[in-house]
Amino acid sequence: MSTAFVAVLMGSDSDLPVMRATLEVLGSLGIPYEVKITSAHRTPEVTHDYVKDADDRGCNAFIAAAGLAAHLAGAVAAATLKPVIGVPLDAGPLKGMDSLLSTVQMPGGIPVATVAVGKAGAKNAAYLAAQILALGDEALAVRIREERQANAQSVINKDAKLQADLAG
Amino acid sequence: MSTAFVAVLMGSDSDLPVMRATLEVLGSLGIPYEVKITSAHRTPEVTHDYVKDADDRGCNAFIAAAGLAAHLAGAVAAATLKPVIGVPLDAGPLKGMDSLLSTVQMPGGIPVATVAVGKAGAKNAAYLAAQILALGDEALAVRIREERQANAQSVINKDAKLQADLAG
Amino acid sequence: MSTAFVAVLMGSDSDLPVMRATLEVLGSLGIPYEVKITSAHRTPEVTHDYVKDADDRGCNAFIAAAGLAAHLAGAVAAATLKPVIGVPLDAGPLKGMDSLLSTVQMPGGIPVATVAVGKAGAKNAAYLAAQILALGDEALAVRIREERQANAQSVINKDAKLQADLAG
Amino acid sequence: MSTAFVAVLMGSDSDLPVMRATLEVLGSLGIPYEVKITSAHRTPEVTHDYVKDADDRGCNAFIAAAGLAAHLAGAVAAATLKPVIGVPLDAGPLKGMDSLLSTVQMPGGIPVATVAVGKAGAKNAAYLAAQILALGDEALAVRIREERQANAQSVINKDAKLQADLAG
Amino acid sequence: MSTAFVAVLMGSDSDLPVMRATLEVLGSLGIPYEVKITSAHRTPEVTHDYVKDADDRGCNAFIAAAGLAAHLAGAVAAATLKPVIGVPLDAGPLKGMDSLLSTVQMPGGIPVATVAVGKAGAKNAAYLAAQILALGDEALAVRIREERQANAQSVINKDAKLQADLAG
Amino acid sequence: MSTAFVAVLMGSDSDLPVMRATLEVLGSLGIPYEVKITSAHRTPEVTHDYVKDADDRGCNAFIAAAGLAAHLAGAVAAATLKPVIGVPLDAGPLKGMDSLLSTVQMPGGIPVATVAVGKAGAKNAAYLAAQILALGDEALAVRIREERQANAQSVINKDAKLQADLAG
Amino acid sequence: MSTAFVAVLMGSDSDLPVMRATLEVLGSLGIPYEVKITSAHRTPEVTHDYVKDADDRGCNAFIAAAGLAAHLAGAVAAATLKPVIGVPLDAGPLKGMDSLLSTVQMPGGIPVATVAVGKAGAKNAAYLAAQILALGDEALAVRIREERQANAQSVINKDAKLQADLAG
Amino acid sequence: MSTAFVAVLMGSDSDLPVMRATLEVLGSLGIPYEVKITSAHRTPEVTHDYVKDADDRGCNAFIAAAGLAAHLAGAVAAATLKPVIGVPLDAGPLKGMDSLLSTVQMPGGIPVATVAVGKAGAKNAAYLAAQILALGDEALAVRIREERQANAQSVINKDAKLQADLAG
Repeated sequence: MSTAFVAVLMGSDSDLPVMRATLEVLGSLGIPYEVKITSAHRTPEVTHDYVKDADDRGCNAFIAAAGLAAHLAGAVAAATLKPVIGVPLDAGPLKGMDSLLSTVQMPGGIPVATVAVGKAGAKNAAYLAAQILALGDEALAVRIREERQANAQSVINKDAKLQADLAG
Repeated sequence: MSTAFVAVLMGSDSDLPVMRATLEVLGSLGIPYEVKITSAHRTPEVTHDYVKDADDRGCNAFIAAAGLAAHLAGAVAAATLKPVIGVPLDAGPLKGMDSLLSTVQMPGGIPVATVAVGKAGAKNAAYLAAQILALGDEALAVRIREERQANAQSVINKDAKLQADLAG
Repeated sequence: MSTAFVAVLMGSDSDLPVMRATLEVLGSLGIPYEVKITSAHRTPEVTHDYVKDADDRGCNAFIAAAGLAAHLAGAVAAATLKPVIGVPLDAGPLKGMDSLLSTVQMPGGIPVATVAVGKAGAKNAAYLAAQILALGDEALAVRIREERQANAQSVINKDAKLQADLAG
Repeated sequence: MSTAFVAVLMGSDSDLPVMRATLEVLGSLGIPYEVKITSAHRTPEVTHDYVKDADDRGCNAFIAAAGLAAHLAGAVAAATLKPVIGVPLDAGPLKGMDSLLSTVQMPGGIPVATVAVGKAGAKNAAYLAAQILALGDEALAVRIREERQANAQSVINKDAKLQADLAG
Repeated sequence: MSTAFVAVLMGSDSDLPVMRATLEVLGSLGIPYEVKITSAHRTPEVTHDYVKDADDRGCNAFIAAAGLAAHLAGAVAAATLKPVIGVPLDAGPLKGMDSLLSTVQMPGGIPVATVAVGKAGAKNAAYLAAQILALGDEALAVRIREERQANAQSVINKDAKLQADLAG
Repeated sequence: MSTAFVAVLMGSDSDLPVMRATLEVLGSLGIPYEVKITSAHRTPEVTHDYVKDADDRGCNAFIAAAGLAAHLAGAVAAATLKPVIGVPLDAGPLKGMDSLLSTVQMPGGIPVATVAVGKAGAKNAAYLAAQILALGDEALAVRIREERQANAQSVINKDAKLQADLAG
Repeated sequence: MSTAFVAVLMGSDSDLPVMRATLEVLGSLGIPYEVKITSAHRTPEVTHDYVKDADDRGCNAFIAAAGLAAHLAGAVAAATLKPVIGVPLDAGPLKGMDSLLSTVQMPGGIPVATVAVGKAGAKNAAYLAAQILALGDEALAVRIREERQANAQSVINKDAKLQADLAG
Repeated sequence: MSTAFVAVLMGSDSDLPVMRATLEVLGSLGIPYEVKITSAHRTPEVTHDYVKDADDRGCNAFIAAAGLAAHLAGAVAAATLKPVIGVPLDAGPLKGMDSLLSTVQMPGGIPVATVAVGKAGAKNAAYLAAQILALGDEALAVRIREERQANAQSVINKDAKLQADLAG
């Protein structure tokens, strides 16, 4: 499974600033990834063909990000049997409640693994994909463990700094 | 345009009891229609092929009903340039707020004409389709006018009965 | 049906910046339109008279945009049998959830074809009106198809640029 | 102002069971009232004409009850300068959040005095109308005061019974 | 009833910028008013005493504005039998949904006439109070009518300007 | 502090079925309590006087339960400096979202310790009151610890039964 | 990876009726699983110890179901680096909006793969776990594909039956 | 109980600006406190150990603040029998509705005393902790009373200034 990779899809280049968080986490964990701008509604065939092709080429997890009536993750999930992670984006006036419900409330049989709305979700989509791939990649599992320990240490360091400030 | 018809799609036969209201209104207005059970996620190719075929055969308005993360109307809208009407159904614990937002919050370029959640929407989807078809069908326009007058008269009759009851 | 046109109503000139998106799409598709500032509550007779008159003069689709307790589309729908498209605007602190529910939850018999809250809806109201008019106007249908293809190509181009950037 | 009366409007006879609470409170306070079934959308002219006529005949407060996209109170408010009280009803799957926002979020200049969703609101619409009419009717003010004292006494009695039960 | 006045209560001086809209409308209609900063929770006795005293001095309508868990209008309503108008303010992160529900969902027997959240509500509280007082003040009724006609004319003028701009 | 007790207030005897859960937990922990039916709006003076009196007699924690625009806990909190616990009840069509926001969103200076909507909250109000009183009552602290251990054991027992069922 | 299994956790035996859907799908796909009743709050150490132990014994995916302030999935996710799937249950008056937000809105670094509220989510949690395990289990991948085809065929059969009924 | 103190926990140093309001109120009332940055998910053992240790050292009330799926207060409540106060923070696009429901909807047996979202809650968490500690600390009770009187006086002063401005 050495050539396993993650495909990150988003509906518009305007989603890229938030989704950079996904790419950065994937990169920091050494996970190969592809990025694809494609829309469930504007380019449904391109989306379908890309998913099928990526699936054939060894994509082992899809991440799909969209706002509003966010159908992209569901459309990907309908075209593959690989795990699909959905990131609801807070585009538009309803602030992501629309994209959250559109992504998570999938009917029985076609799951989308939904993460938080916006930036926290963009990060966690990558961590979740990493956890999935790490089941078959021991070295990746080690890197995830180190990353989580570093995250914990960062919280501990912030607390230490706060205590020093308060004591100072 | 005499062979124009409406295609009514729903994701499951469990949607049929609510959607009978659509069929009854279409029937009462003398509008030819087809009914199709097909799912945006479970049978995406069937959905796509049916829409393309119906479009070619003279379908002039699509009505798509779904609950939860309701993608069916959006999937239809991505496959045709004919008007697509979405009926959000109140399946599941969130009572239709999920299907409403999933249906109405479509991104720019791919509209779905969304009506009310549940039974009121099931009726109105048919009336809206009728109004659209009536632009090219004078006889249908007359029947719609008569139907609306009958609706108004029904309200007036209920009030008359109430006044009689109160006076009685 | 060569003189068919679309009437775009809004409750206030403060709605114009968002609703320009409607006018631009109608213009780009070569669809004749009128714009009218009128209020369901402040100028109900003007609204009613305008709708009746526009209807008589060949208006084949109405677009009505309003915020808060958005009654304009419903008031138009009560005065005509032509298709009425409602655009909920996100004016005020509740961010358009009020106008969305006020527009979409119409009772049986008086449909309003509701589109997304705010700018996405403003665009889609025009596309939806175009799809409706195109049922009787083959040349318009061709222009809509070209527009959708251009939209798809725009997504494809953005993806190509992204791939080039990533490869670069 | 001895001939002042309250007009109670509702969109359908299906609203009558809840709105009986309004009529009972008005009756118990000795306030003359009329009841009218009429719809903002199905019978807009009847509604308008009734409001104008009731206004001329001495109606000093309107109560309008509706569910879903509840426009009735707003339509009444647009046709009169008398106080208009709106009762949002919890018809349909969204449980009255739709009718509440459709009733209360009126734009500047056309107020609707909104009360609670459903039965509590049906009662309070009558009490509010009574308070308004009592400004010009001293005897009514006395009856309202007695009613409120009776309400308070009822709470006190329930507590006394509870204390007796607990002591028993 | 010539000395009738309106009492405008708010919980904090930070509410004053929004509530100036209330004062301006009352002023423009020539309605005497008092303004009082007092809190349902921080100064409950002051609130209670002020309401009782204002009531005795001829206050015929109370307007109470508050944000968050907005209890001020309800507290006023519990202390008087005069009509009480509640203005929910959009203070805090929940954007007024909290104050709206806290104001409007009053239990049976103690109505609060609730208007829209924020600025639209601030204006409408004044118009509603004016409509109530005008039942016993013919001259005020005339001024309200003129104000509404001016409002309608303003919409008409904006439309005329738009038509001129478009024609230009 | 041996005479410390908890006062449990509710607005109506219809709240008693849910609030029995509070009384049962208080009883099982051996905490003296009083129950009082009184309303923030219908009997504000009774409420105020009871709170002042209970406070003087050694009440160390108040529990107040209400539905709709739930002001009771806030009214109690304005009349005492003792801790006040609010239980939002799910009365009415909005299912407790109204009472939750009305109870929890208190302005700075007048806290209400809010627990979950309905039955879970009714239980937890008692546990929270117990935890507060246990700070000055070692024997009560021991009983709370035993209760929590029993709760934990109950979960463990349910799991053991499930495992036996699955193994059987 | 032949000994890989899924651990299904739930906070109470009252969750079992809904979660049987998870167990049935896992069983039908031949995926070994364990079921554990344990609570994030009542038995945190048991939960933590179980997760650590299951992780060591080869658990490759956790499914955690909870209602209200649903912390169970998050607590599991904090104790393992294996993928954690959260099922929000619609216990209590807020109908699952509470458990959905409590499950999905996890902060960066600790993902929970959230599925739909209630029964649809219970099914999809199993399908998602299956998709994850199938990355390292070709035979399971084949069974998932067959299951999805059977699901699609079921929709097609329902449609065929409907067409026959309509034709009949 | 002279060494009683309050422990204030938050998940990140980014929560500190809002939570300074808590520290300021505690400081102004002369209540000893500790501040701790620790996360329910990133540093669960640190959180658990800190709570146990603080509990042993005489902490009599915990305040825990978090945003998104806010589990911190619940995790603290699972580890201690002392009162735990939860402050939902409005981090992220859903504006605190997520953290409010995650904090308040605790299951039976493990209460979290929840206060308002954001800054108002940050203040009130401190006041609530003070009220709890004051049950065993008469001097603190006096300071709380003075603080509340000062708060009331501040409202009265603002009103006096307003009256002077208006008279001026």
